[in-house]
Amino acid sequence: MRILKVLALVFLPALCSVGGHAQALPVYLDDTKPMEERVEDALRRMTLDEKIAVIHAQSKFSSPGVARLGIPEFWTDDGPHGVRPDVLWDEWMQAGQTNDSCVAFPALTCLAATWNPRMSLVYGVALGEEARYRKKDMILGPGVNILRTPLGGRNFEYMGEDPYLASRMVVPYIIGLQSNGVSACVKHFALNNDEEYRHQVNAIVDDRALHEIYLPAFKAAVKDGHAWALMGGYNLYKDQHNCHNRYLLMDILKGDWAFDGVVVSDWGGTHDTRQAIENGLDLEFGTWTDGLAFGASNAYDNYYMARPYRELIRKGEYTTKELDDKVRRVLRLFYRTTMKRHRRLGSMNSEAHYATARRIAGEGIVLLKNDGGVLPLDTTKALRVLVVGENAIKMMTVGGGSSSLKVQRETLPLEGMRSLLGDNIRVEYARGYVGDTTGEYNGVVAKQKLYDPRTPDELIAEAVAKAKEADCVVVFGGLNKSDYQDAEGHDRKQYGLPYGQDRLVEALAEANKNLVFVNISGNPVAMPWLDNVAAVVQGWFLGSTAGEALADVLTGRVNPSGKLPYTWWRSLDDVPAHKLGTYPGTWREDKKIIDEEYKEGIFVGYRWVDKEKTKTLFAFGHGLSYTSFNIGKATADKSSLSLGDSITFTVPVTNTGAKAGSEVVQLYVRDCKSSLARPYKELKAFSKVSLAPGETKQVSLTIGRDALSFYDDKAGQWTAEPGQFEALIGNASDNITQKVKFTLM
Amino acid sequence: MRILKVLALVFLPALCSVGGHAQALPVYLDDTKPMEERVEDALRRMTLDEKIAVIHAQSKFSSPGVARLGIPEFWTDDGPHGVRPDVLWDEWMQAGQTNDSCVAFPALTCLAATWNPRMSLVYGVALGEEARYRKKDMILGPGVNILRTPLGGRNFEYMGEDPYLASRMVVPYIIGLQSNGVSACVKHFALNNDEEYRHQVNAIVDDRALHEIYLPAFKAAVKDGHAWALMGGYNLYKDQHNCHNRYLLMDILKGDWAFDGVVVSDWGGTHDTRQAIENGLDLEFGTWTDGLAFGASNAYDNYYMARPYRELIRKGEYTTKELDDKVRRVLRLFYRTTMKRHRRLGSMNSEAHYATARRIAGEGIVLLKNDGGVLPLDTTKALRVLVVGENAIKMMTVGGGSSSLKVQRETLPLEGMRSLLGDNIRVEYARGYVGDTTGEYNGVVAKQKLYDPRTPDELIAEAVAKAKEADCVVVFGGLNKSDYQDAEGHDRKQYGLPYGQDRLVEALAEANKNLVFVNISGNPVAMPWLDNVAAVVQGWFLGSTAGEALADVLTGRVNPSGKLPYTWWRSLDDVPAHKLGTYPGTWREDKKIIDEEYKEGIFVGYRWVDKEKTKTLFAFGHGLSYTSFNIGKATADKSSLSLGDSITFTVPVTNTGAKAGSEVVQLYVRDCKSSLARPYKELKAFSKVSLAPGETKQVSLTIGRDALSFYDDKAGQWTAEPGQFEALIGNASDNITQKVKFTLM
Repeated sequence: MRILKVLALVFLPALCSVGGHAQALPVYLDDTKPMEERVEDALRRMTLDEKIAVIHAQSKFSSPGVARLGIPEFWTDDGPHGVRPDVLWDEWMQAGQTNDSCVAFPALTCLAATWNPRMSLVYGVALGEEARYRKKDMILGPGVNILRTPLGGRNFEYMGEDPYLASRMVVPYIIGLQSNGVSACVKHFALNNDEEYRHQVNAIVDDRALHEIYLPAFKAAVKDGHAWALMGGYNLYKDQHNCHNRYLLMDILKGDWAFDGVVVSDWGGTHDTRQAIENGLDLEFGTWTDGLAFGASNAYDNYYMARPYRELIRKGEYTTKELDDKVRRVLRLFYRTTMKRHRRLGSMNSEAHYATARRIAGEGIVLLKNDGGVLPLDTTKALRVLVVGENAIKMMTVGGGSSSLKVQRETLPLEGMRSLLGDNIRVEYARGYVGDTTGEYNGVVAKQKLYDPRTPDELIAEAVAKAKEADCVVVFGGLNKSDYQDAEGHDRKQYGLPYGQDRLVEALAEANKNLVFVNISGNPVAMPWLDNVAAVVQGWFLGSTAGEALADVLTGRVNPSGKLPYTWWRSLDDVPAHKLGTYPGTWREDKKIIDEEYKEGIFVGYRWVDKEKTKTLFAFGHGLSYTSFNIGKATADKSSLSLGDSITFTVPVTNTGAKAGSEVVQLYVRDCKSSLARPYKELKAFSKVSLAPGETKQVSLTIGRDALSFYDDKAGQWTAEPGQFEALIGNASDNITQKVKFTLM
Repeated sequence: MRILKVLALVFLPALCSVGGHAQALPVYLDDTKPMEERVEDALRRMTLDEKIAVIHAQSKFSSPGVARLGIPEFWTDDGPHGVRPDVLWDEWMQAGQTNDSCVAFPALTCLAATWNPRMSLVYGVALGEEARYRKKDMILGPGVNILRTPLGGRNFEYMGEDPYLASRMVVPYIIGLQSNGVSACVKHFALNNDEEYRHQVNAIVDDRALHEIYLPAFKAAVKDGHAWALMGGYNLYKDQHNCHNRYLLMDILKGDWAFDGVVVSDWGGTHDTRQAIENGLDLEFGTWTDGLAFGASNAYDNYYMARPYRELIRKGEYTTKELDDKVRRVLRLFYRTTMKRHRRLGSMNSEAHYATARRIAGEGIVLLKNDGGVLPLDTTKALRVLVVGENAIKMMTVGGGSSSLKVQRETLPLEGMRSLLGDNIRVEYARGYVGDTTGEYNGVVAKQKLYDPRTPDELIAEAVAKAKEADCVVVFGGLNKSDYQDAEGHDRKQYGLPYGQDRLVEALAEANKNLVFVNISGNPVAMPWLDNVAAVVQGWFLGSTAGEALADVLTGRVNPSGKLPYTWWRSLDDVPAHKLGTYPGTWREDKKIIDEEYKEGIFVGYRWVDKEKTKTLFAFGHGLSYTSFNIGKATADKSSLSLGDSITFTVPVTNTGAKAGSEVVQLYVRDCKSSLARPYKELKAFSKVSLAPGETKQVSLTIGRDALSFYDDKAGQWTAEPGQFEALIGNASDNITQKVKFTLM
């Protein structure tokens, strides 16, 4: 007692001290002070070395705080579908931990296919909780590059071809993620639309396409999502690397959009100290030191924004003006994350997270074709179901590049089918084809033994023989996460399915008319046999609950409601980037770069389809259901509007079938006359509505000035021209059933 | 704007959810609920596997939380003098990080030598801040094992020989550390008083010595310091390993002392599942898996309290009764640390921390001898100072076992002398002797090149020649952190100085009468040449600011005020444990253990000196100053007291010299007559007072029942017997200048 009393009287002031010295809490540590005041106070206290330190990495995935001032370190991690397992300090090799197995959420293409922003929000919240539990302060995602070519190796990480859909879907993801005090890092800014030569490609794109197609999702992420960080792309624009691209970062992002956050370099995307200083890079990560830092504490001091920057300041070539701006931004990021003492603690691998992953997957799977009602599989009957294909037994959470994960669990499609189909149904399996037998990334091999010594003919023969005995055949095919498939660093080499799957499907379709093809991919693929199969399901990369989610949809436990976020081309010849011969670009010797001219301009995806009247396999926005819907007569709340006004369209939507289900009502705007060429129609509103059988709901869709505007490249600004417009309403870009004319005054 | 409005209305509930599902905050996550309610709520939600998981490690220094419930992982680290650099997940090898260089604070022997509890508090606060910055939730320390033999390899980590001094000094350390939301882990409980055979030694000690000498500091840590965790020793007591010792953990710690915290096993100290279950181990760390876990996620499931425990429960041999008690304790630890969302963020390597380290070091350095005023060195004169000895140029923060650190900086004594002595003084250096040439621990070699090819004769000849030219010689000698010196895992092999230092000192003393010997160690050493040297300073292991702190004292910038926390024996023959032939004990074949009988009982250290009238080199509590003090006549506020009362003694203390300084007034109690044998005197109060030249302060020392009590081993309880007592007041155990009799009624 005596001891305690003495302590209380004499020592308690010391317990409230900083660094052992009793003093008033400095502003930069005072949670009650406004952030900008705290930023300025912290900035004033930092030495030049400390300022230089916080603008570049100290390890593969961390950057220092200011230890002496009690400003914590900053830890980031891939992203975007789950929290990447930890690697060694300065090696890409995994650190051998056993605490970093996570939930893999569906890939962002699947999220986009839900056409349900609420799914983005719960995705962001859940991922943020996992990140917090792993003590990560920033997740490297989401990705919102536009799907320009279906060969793009990284399209699976993005949100499709449409700037409006991507904008609507990316914002809640960011808000949800950041609600945990974990920063998003929206990537890859900008025009990083293919992978094969991503370090050399210099995108040549007109201002209209830049602003109307390639920037809107980033702008929404910044202006509406309030993203705290953004990652520069590897590629170039206007002959300048995008991690220090003056036009993109200084003029547009930090100028026009007033972005107050941090520009992070992609890992290895920084190339020049002066450009980095002047052109808006704030935080340099991933410049090459691999292994050098092991025992050499100053390896990271060789970064472009480390010693070389410090020396330029010491030589007087720069003041600290640019540096202070960068540090302010980094400090702002700290206050939003690491310095936010009251952040929630996060959680990981919870059943709630698995349920979220499964729900998103279920809403994202797209029923592309369903002839004769072969789906859903009737689990009340004593069916014999044959499952075929490597993708039924292949982990898809490992591989694909930086988004590769170490999952706590992943239900494979065959497992999901076996566990959900019930006792009535006998599930058999035939391999059908052999693809890449390992899923390997950075030394980690997925725990799966997929070796099969048989020839393609033998595999097909076995599958066909079994198919003849089955009531129904479900083929799980498509792509995978190996190099040159849906994977970072390369593009696909062809549009067709790999590993001889076309032969397999054709043979099976002859053997059994009830053939369901489930395509696992993040890209469209050629389907020369489409007419011969009864049903096609787009199954994406679904993460931890892939097997359950696919079985949910195939058995009708979940009524599919996903809609394609991109055009499903018949062949590469239909794709503008390929038809116009602009991909992958042409070598320019003077700069050792590859010029890739976006000759199609704003006519990407369905905009090209409308313009060229191109036939597709499946249209943007297409997706079937096990029930049927009727979209009734659309009405508008006014027939004309003035600038600054909005107009609301209402349609009754009725579930005319026998099952509960959800429909996505899509509103495209047509500018009937314009001074500049415009796409025939552009998506400007959508709403997903769930309906019981027989139920009708009124769905309202409101649009305003933004929806009517285009980018006037001569004036250098968005403009909406008075005149007649048309709202085109339907449930797919190729199924417009309601049209309402209105006038902008 | 529209998007944000929609989000705000529709989605905000989800942002306040757990796991993506909107619901009320469960009790276990609700900061406003009492801890015990939250513990019970969390316990109810945990599965058997989760309960088993949280009571053992998942890596070298971490244990899992409950990811699914959002209960964070728990990270611990050595301890006790700074935050140990990170090792790989399941390997002792350092992880190669560059963010884990810390401030090394002085070793705990130095802290004890300050005799200033305020220094313990600022030590704990600063260390806790460093731990928090490194995201550690528990520091493995402090150590309060009693110095029983000066050969003990780990004495430098402890607080000396006296239970009262250690008790007073350990409590504020714990309070300061834990004020950061970082748990202490008081070690090594108990009777772990030597190192050589620590895994085999079975301490045989009578109950009086156990309770009066070996347990009080632990008891104070628990009862007054409210330590949240405590570490079991490697050794045995009553034939049972102390990490699962029924008598120590269940009867005394959790029974008598009502400890509600966690018993942590020392790394590799667990040996038996049933004993661990039944005898109070709560958290198993360090059981051997080295390397096995790399890629084998279940290696830690082989721990005694993992799969084997689960199986015993599944077989019905245990209910979850014991398990639930352990989990409750672990959860309590979580709520005190990881679940405390509002913890401060910590800081590291701050100038405040360096200042704290330097101040503690300055207060802990002990001036043992100072004939003819050779010290302090007069920096106003044009002196030529010769510095001699390996310890002047040797890092002492690396090595010594688990307390080894990776420091941000460490000033060596020669550097400190050179930078502080000023321009008037020429500092030369001679090596003098060569000891161990590397400081190596777990593969990390201190960055120092200490190789010297010369023979001892050559080294001595060089030093002597230079000494003849110098005005003053300062030898930095003593021990170091190599095996068999002051280092974990072994005891010293001899009491004498190693590496031929005695010959060197004798030769130098002949060459130069102004010889100062600075002894760097955590133990006393033989000094056969003591009469021939002018001054002796005990320099401890001082950590990052060693050089500055030593120069501070040698130059008089800091007036020494440290006092020995242990007896400085003349030779090993004077030490009771050795004199009575009880060390290291005798092999017992039946149990394969070594019985070490503490035959000296309660007569440890100065208690033995008093009893045997042993001559010492320096007495417990001894320490000189550059000024002089007079302790005046002591008065008491009463002449008698009853049980439950306290009595206060007051003495005027005057600085009778010319320099400001601090004196430690020490009060020993003598029980003039007792039914059981008692030491002649025992330290029961002390106070450090700082005085300007000529200043007098009244120093009051209060004692109560505790100070008069002894442990009655027949009754099994503490008792104070009425009768006459004497308060013996002085500035060292061998310099009692005031005596006041009083009566306990």
